[in-house]
Amino acid sequence: MHVARMTDERLGELYTGTLGLVVEHGYEKLTMDQIAEATRSSKATLYRQWGGKSGLVVEALACGIDSTPEPPDTGSLRGDLLAMVDQGDTESRQYDADLIAAIMHAVRHDAELAEAVRSKILDPARADIRAVVDRAVQRGEVAADCPGLEFVDYVFIAPIVLHHLLEGDEPSGDFLRRYVEGALLPALGIRPN
Amino acid sequence: MHVARMTDERLGELYTGTLGLVVEHGYEKLTMDQIAEATRSSKATLYRQWGGKSGLVVEALACGIDSTPEPPDTGSLRGDLLAMVDQGDTESRQYDADLIAAIMHAVRHDAELAEAVRSKILDPARADIRAVVDRAVQRGEVAADCPGLEFVDYVFIAPIVLHHLLEGDEPSGDFLRRYVEGALLPALGIRPN
Repeated sequence: MHVARMTDERLGELYTGTLGLVVEHGYEKLTMDQIAEATRSSKATLYRQWGGKSGLVVEALACGIDSTPEPPDTGSLRGDLLAMVDQGDTESRQYDADLIAAIMHAVRHDAELAEAVRSKILDPARADIRAVVDRAVQRGEVAADCPGLEFVDYVFIAPIVLHHLLEGDEPSGDFLRRYVEGALLPALGIRPN
Repeated sequence: MHVARMTDERLGELYTGTLGLVVEHGYEKLTMDQIAEATRSSKATLYRQWGGKSGLVVEALACGIDSTPEPPDTGSLRGDLLAMVDQGDTESRQYDADLIAAIMHAVRHDAELAEAVRSKILDPARADIRAVVDRAVQRGEVAADCPGLEFVDYVFIAPIVLHHLLEGDEPSGDFLRRYVEGALLPALGIRPN
């Protein structure tokens, strides 16, 4: 989509502001009026350039800086998974979990939005876990026909998305490390330490 | 809360209608006007009796008929877990997943609503999986100190809540059965068949 007369900096500000409002208000309740006001934009401009809220949020997601570092390579699956927990900080996990919660209902009814959430938030996390697990298969740590391989991304993502729903707060690093030992590694056929 | 001059039938209709609207519109976007109109109620009555949307939805959740059958007792953990998959139908799983998606953002900001969602939707599912797993521990199928015990509800709930987000549709019974074999049983130290 052609975005006229906005500097990259201004555009980045607008996208970041928009995603912050999604997290704050929830995607479906958020209005273009609120976005225009909070980002000091003209509503007419927003509609002209992005067509509406869905188009704007899709672009905001698509243009988000992918700050995820390379998946770790410590030489063992346990080491890699624990390093992934330590790499992420509670704040960025909370942001992802907030954003997913804010948009989870809307993506059931908006295929383009669903695709944007998948390709920018979920697929990078799934690719990281897959990369780490693929190396474990190559090393022979995990059997190539291990049935858990099909489900490793569900087990990996579950505590990040579900902890707040189940417990009322974000998972601590300690919880996630115990989860790696107690749920994720065993699901791949590796016994707890 | 005192609910004056409504028959139980009318009240049930109102609560069911309200939850249906939550699923349709998402909790946060849904307005009391929409609820009043769709359930043919007076908005003044709704406000007087429930105080607002949160109070109404909390009561609607609390008064929901708990139709979950007793957790199965087939004599083995694998049998019980597969029976749980077969007990549930895709439609009721979709309803639960829809409702959780519709309310997931709101519960981060409304403790009373969070408590209602936990006690009526999540806790019964968690209690069922715990009952089944506790019996497996008593039978010696699962070690009493198995680290996966702490996380079994996360692994159990994950595909129901996350499948639509990750794949764009509800999980099939076949997927869930493979998940039991490939993720849930191994997380409890039981090797895939």
